[in-house]
Amino acid sequence: MTDLVPTPTVPAPDIVRCAYMEIVVTDLAASRAFYVDLLGLHVTEEDEHTLYLRSFEEFIHHNLVLRKGPIAAVAAFAYRVRTPADVDAAEAYYQELGCRTERRREGFTQGIGDSVRVEDPLGFPYEFFYEAEHVERLTQRYDLYSAGELVRLDHFNQVTPDVPRGRAYLEDLGFRVSEDIQDSDGITYAVWMHRKQTVHDTALTGGNGPRMHHVAFATHEKHNIIQICDKMGALRISDRIERGPGRHGVSNAFYLYILDPDGHRIEIYTQDYYTGDPDNPTVTWDVHDNQRRDWWGNAVVPSWYTEASLVLDLDGHPQPVFERTDSSEMAVTVGADGFSYTRKEGAEAAGFKLGAQL
Amino acid sequence: MTDLVPTPTVPAPDIVRCAYMEIVVTDLAASRAFYVDLLGLHVTEEDEHTLYLRSFEEFIHHNLVLRKGPIAAVAAFAYRVRTPADVDAAEAYYQELGCRTERRREGFTQGIGDSVRVEDPLGFPYEFFYEAEHVERLTQRYDLYSAGELVRLDHFNQVTPDVPRGRAYLEDLGFRVSEDIQDSDGITYAVWMHRKQTVHDTALTGGNGPRMHHVAFATHEKHNIIQICDKMGALRISDRIERGPGRHGVSNAFYLYILDPDGHRIEIYTQDYYTGDPDNPTVTWDVHDNQRRDWWGNAVVPSWYTEASLVLDLDGHPQPVFERTDSSEMAVTVGADGFSYTRKEGAEAAGFKLGAQL
Amino acid sequence: MTDLVPTPTVPAPDIVRCAYMEIVVTDLAASRAFYVDLLGLHVTEEDEHTLYLRSFEEFIHHNLVLRKGPIAAVAAFAYRVRTPADVDAAEAYYQELGCRTERRREGFTQGIGDSVRVEDPLGFPYEFFYEAEHVERLTQRYDLYSAGELVRLDHFNQVTPDVPRGRAYLEDLGFRVSEDIQDSDGITYAVWMHRKQTVHDTALTGGNGPRMHHVAFATHEKHNIIQICDKMGALRISDRIERGPGRHGVSNAFYLYILDPDGHRIEIYTQDYYTGDPDNPTVTWDVHDNQRRDWWGNAVVPSWYTEASLVLDLDGHPQPVFERTDSSEMAVTVGADGFSYTRKEGAEAAGFKLGAQL
Amino acid sequence: MTDLVPTPTVPAPDIVRCAYMEIVVTDLAASRAFYVDLLGLHVTEEDEHTLYLRSFEEFIHHNLVLRKGPIAAVAAFAYRVRTPADVDAAEAYYQELGCRTERRREGFTQGIGDSVRVEDPLGFPYEFFYEAEHVERLTQRYDLYSAGELVRLDHFNQVTPDVPRGRAYLEDLGFRVSEDIQDSDGITYAVWMHRKQTVHDTALTGGNGPRMHHVAFATHEKHNIIQICDKMGALRISDRIERGPGRHGVSNAFYLYILDPDGHRIEIYTQDYYTGDPDNPTVTWDVHDNQRRDWWGNAVVPSWYTEASLVLDLDGHPQPVFERTDSSEMAVTVGADGFSYTRKEGAEAAGFKLGAQL
Repeated sequence: MTDLVPTPTVPAPDIVRCAYMEIVVTDLAASRAFYVDLLGLHVTEEDEHTLYLRSFEEFIHHNLVLRKGPIAAVAAFAYRVRTPADVDAAEAYYQELGCRTERRREGFTQGIGDSVRVEDPLGFPYEFFYEAEHVERLTQRYDLYSAGELVRLDHFNQVTPDVPRGRAYLEDLGFRVSEDIQDSDGITYAVWMHRKQTVHDTALTGGNGPRMHHVAFATHEKHNIIQICDKMGALRISDRIERGPGRHGVSNAFYLYILDPDGHRIEIYTQDYYTGDPDNPTVTWDVHDNQRRDWWGNAVVPSWYTEASLVLDLDGHPQPVFERTDSSEMAVTVGADGFSYTRKEGAEAAGFKLGAQL
Repeated sequence: MTDLVPTPTVPAPDIVRCAYMEIVVTDLAASRAFYVDLLGLHVTEEDEHTLYLRSFEEFIHHNLVLRKGPIAAVAAFAYRVRTPADVDAAEAYYQELGCRTERRREGFTQGIGDSVRVEDPLGFPYEFFYEAEHVERLTQRYDLYSAGELVRLDHFNQVTPDVPRGRAYLEDLGFRVSEDIQDSDGITYAVWMHRKQTVHDTALTGGNGPRMHHVAFATHEKHNIIQICDKMGALRISDRIERGPGRHGVSNAFYLYILDPDGHRIEIYTQDYYTGDPDNPTVTWDVHDNQRRDWWGNAVVPSWYTEASLVLDLDGHPQPVFERTDSSEMAVTVGADGFSYTRKEGAEAAGFKLGAQL
Repeated sequence: MTDLVPTPTVPAPDIVRCAYMEIVVTDLAASRAFYVDLLGLHVTEEDEHTLYLRSFEEFIHHNLVLRKGPIAAVAAFAYRVRTPADVDAAEAYYQELGCRTERRREGFTQGIGDSVRVEDPLGFPYEFFYEAEHVERLTQRYDLYSAGELVRLDHFNQVTPDVPRGRAYLEDLGFRVSEDIQDSDGITYAVWMHRKQTVHDTALTGGNGPRMHHVAFATHEKHNIIQICDKMGALRISDRIERGPGRHGVSNAFYLYILDPDGHRIEIYTQDYYTGDPDNPTVTWDVHDNQRRDWWGNAVVPSWYTEASLVLDLDGHPQPVFERTDSSEMAVTVGADGFSYTRKEGAEAAGFKLGAQL
Repeated sequence: MTDLVPTPTVPAPDIVRCAYMEIVVTDLAASRAFYVDLLGLHVTEEDEHTLYLRSFEEFIHHNLVLRKGPIAAVAAFAYRVRTPADVDAAEAYYQELGCRTERRREGFTQGIGDSVRVEDPLGFPYEFFYEAEHVERLTQRYDLYSAGELVRLDHFNQVTPDVPRGRAYLEDLGFRVSEDIQDSDGITYAVWMHRKQTVHDTALTGGNGPRMHHVAFATHEKHNIIQICDKMGALRISDRIERGPGRHGVSNAFYLYILDPDGHRIEIYTQDYYTGDPDNPTVTWDVHDNQRRDWWGNAVVPSWYTEASLVLDLDGHPQPVFERTDSSEMAVTVGADGFSYTRKEGAEAAGFKLGAQL
């Protein structure tokens, strides 16, 4: 890739974690039914245009903002930084990169203070903030605990055409790689990157982008995820279950993908592993290993590879989508042309086995 | 015991299962908060005096009737029989026993048809019915499924002074013994008896009686029971958790005992075992085995042995309570005078070990 | 169907439950690795030709016999009856039906006494026995409890071309229907039938038969089933996971289908519901309801419809397989020609909705 | 407190997490039965004197070293630091504090490189290291996953007489407080402190010390902990279950305390919460709140307050134990003299309620 994002000379902001996503939805009542009535996210605040939601163990104002608008899209991937000064650092960092930035001392969303939003080099609307209103952390409010309770925001997932370019940019920004998917030609199909001590705060999935692949919430246990499926069956919306539940190869988490009324994809996720050590082993999976995306070898549906949400620029217009030119994971693994294996005889004979390094 | 209940010459009714309990409570609103808001039982019907509740997978009108009255007590232990004719059989059976009986073609409670109530030889108000209104079975209404959902009525537990006498009477009535607690002198402290294919539909606990020890509801999994504890903590009523959660030695079920606003004891229970074979092995536990009542050896609190609910005669007056004259389980096992063991060296050396026959 | 099985004049044997299956396998060591090392069934007894296995809470000698032989097939579907005399009753019953029978006082398998085997009217090898050697019931041997422990044999599933004919025959034999799948033309695609108080002891699946569709074992909780998937992933045999895990519409159980080394299908199953009442509501599902076989709407793979095991006659020869002539469930629901729905607008408008009666 | 530990002028080492504990046991075979056969920890390496064990998801050589010796005691609380230079920093830090230190380039235990051990100001043997041999991380080795699998080392717990003194010392060392227990007179009874993003890497419990209160391992789910209890029941060692299982008030984790053959206390722990934000809210509990140590109000047994393990100096001699002079948590809360509440009427009236801030 010739078009690498340059490494700024100013220090990167110290990012703590992914903190919230702002999503534009076309029918706020339908979205409320999905996120509040079905999924049980807790309403911190709402008005006729906007819904501020948080997970059970969150203590800042929100993890998800649903804003009514004309086009379903993502308005911000927001990260919390360690200090107020890191907002300045973020602004300087992206300005040196030549990115458009916008600073608002009063914040872009309710309950959040001084923030900077940027159109990042990959075309995504990133936000950085420190100041946040503290609200009741519901951790022990078991009187409010539903059978499918979502307890934490876990991560974002972004679709981008050039994964190595995105990876290098995010490594500069301080993210560390926990796992990736490659092939023997050195093509990278996806990469998982973290700041907090889990497998990821965000991941890059190779494909036409910039687009938002999904946003993920964590549950305490696996049965909580099964309950969400069961409830969607009871509500006769099982056609909104896109993929899973299953066990990921990558990350080892138990997972489920569902679609909101606008087609925004939500993952429910539990029990990945600790990544906080400085030499945490990176796991590389072979794209042809059919246990990489589902440890049980269950098939990935094509829509999961092809569908994703538009993202907005700072004026609220959808960013143009660029095609991936590297080979696509779906093409190389699914259907008549694809190749995948459960037991890779040759690789084992050669004394090396991708995807078995965890 | 010289005073055995005679065996009637007429056939016993064919009892299917324990079906519901009618309980008198002194503050209906407080009881509603406990059974509906806290425990999540489903209201089939209610008026200002009475609440009809059912569990998640029940298809007959109710498993629990809460009726407002001046004295907290139990008005009926109701069993479902196999056919309408079995109600006649029950009436004839108890009439031959010389027990007071009352027949009501329209039923004693809403949603139940032709029934007979009796003051049984042990002093308990037993009811037998076949006709029952079918209501929506909520089995797949996961939109209504709470984190601590109670899915079935499991069993009753009755306190009676003379356990062998009660056991013989219930065996005549068609109950079969799954487990019991004895000592080496042949004293029986408690016995578990079933009609349906679980460990019990009712149990007899030795003590001053007739009194109602508890009524038990089943959950699907163990975490559902833990959630009930967590919720009681959140509501700051942890002092209504009397005992558990734990694993029973007897029955092998995971359990919890809690107290309703009147002190009626409710057990939450899950995962005992199948007992439907004609030669299902009976398990006898040594009263001194400290894993018999809690497999983990956690102590039984004294109130669990001493407290129980009054039961009513057919006029609604409390039955007098008679003292147990055999030694009490609490006296022989708890405190300075009690003896119990985790590993019974002597018994094992002798090639025989009570409580290890399951 | 004109060819109904006649109703015998002699009484049917009183069947207690499905008790064990005898399966012929072609590589006993490979089967031992699957059933003992992977699934953790407990070996009661074994020699170089045969393996006798039981589940965790079983107290009779075995639930599964694996016998080495030249052709993978099923040698017996064995039911336990209530009394020794019921073996005589079974023999007389099938003799009146004109079926071939064979009586062995010493039993056909180790640990089982007086038994009769028959070639039943549908072509299946059924066995009936009462006498069984009691072995250690492992219920509280948690030192032997694996993360994916199988605790009970739950049911058989048989493929037969003419489901209504099979259903009427099994109803005569004393089985009761809990659920079925039909279409609006009155074609029955499958039926679930029970003796013990669960959804089924056996089910009939419409298709070319007689063949054995699967044999099912129960776990305590859902996570136990997930562990079996995870373990198959770790062993790199995820290609032996055929379907699931998922939630059944029919039966409401959480399920998984896996394939043994000979392709015999095993279901792992948990948490169906109590069916012991005489008027237990029967649930009829519409074949076009895509939540009937998976409550979450996940697709049924074609092999699940088409593949099944041969069954043997009493000489050990495979029974010929007859084609189903009614329409096939796969044809009417899968692929380009099939039709299925998540929300059946029309049916609801008409005030009636198949598959919503549970 | 007059005797504060001075704050060094040199920077504190950057501690990543608690990493392993070295424990002296008196009967290595008995300890192996407990930690390997019962608890299922994985043996990285062993010889006749020493056992090196790790949890399921660990990738460094060990989390627990069991070394045979004459006196049951703790030889080291070992922390991993971020870089090799942080070992130098630790050595300089404690030297400035006037503590005895010992540096070993080859490490004190197998699989660990350059390390420094110190006798810290509270009398505990602390170790700091960066270099560690990587071993197979078993995360997806579900073929080795037991029903009660321990997946991570979670934390240490230390008994010390003067909790505020210890807290200030550990804050200087870079630990941050997540929760504590106080009374209205300002006495601190216990404090929880973390480096990684969980509730603690170590906690200080007020009492006679320096002693080791417990070392804790995490499971994935709650049922894994219940299985450990069930297995101890099956092995007839339920008398080694000291306290629990239960839900902590502090930390919100589901917990169990068990005792190894030497009386060293092990906690099994799951599902506390994320603490990685810089302004993570600190929770202060009232010592009289009977839900602080068990959210369900179940009693804390006296041994849990009084018993703990000796710790060794760098010569391997037990450190002398000093008495706590502040009031003891047991004295103020348990028994005839103690006071505790479930609902603190007065505090609520005053508009302030300790223990409800989470």
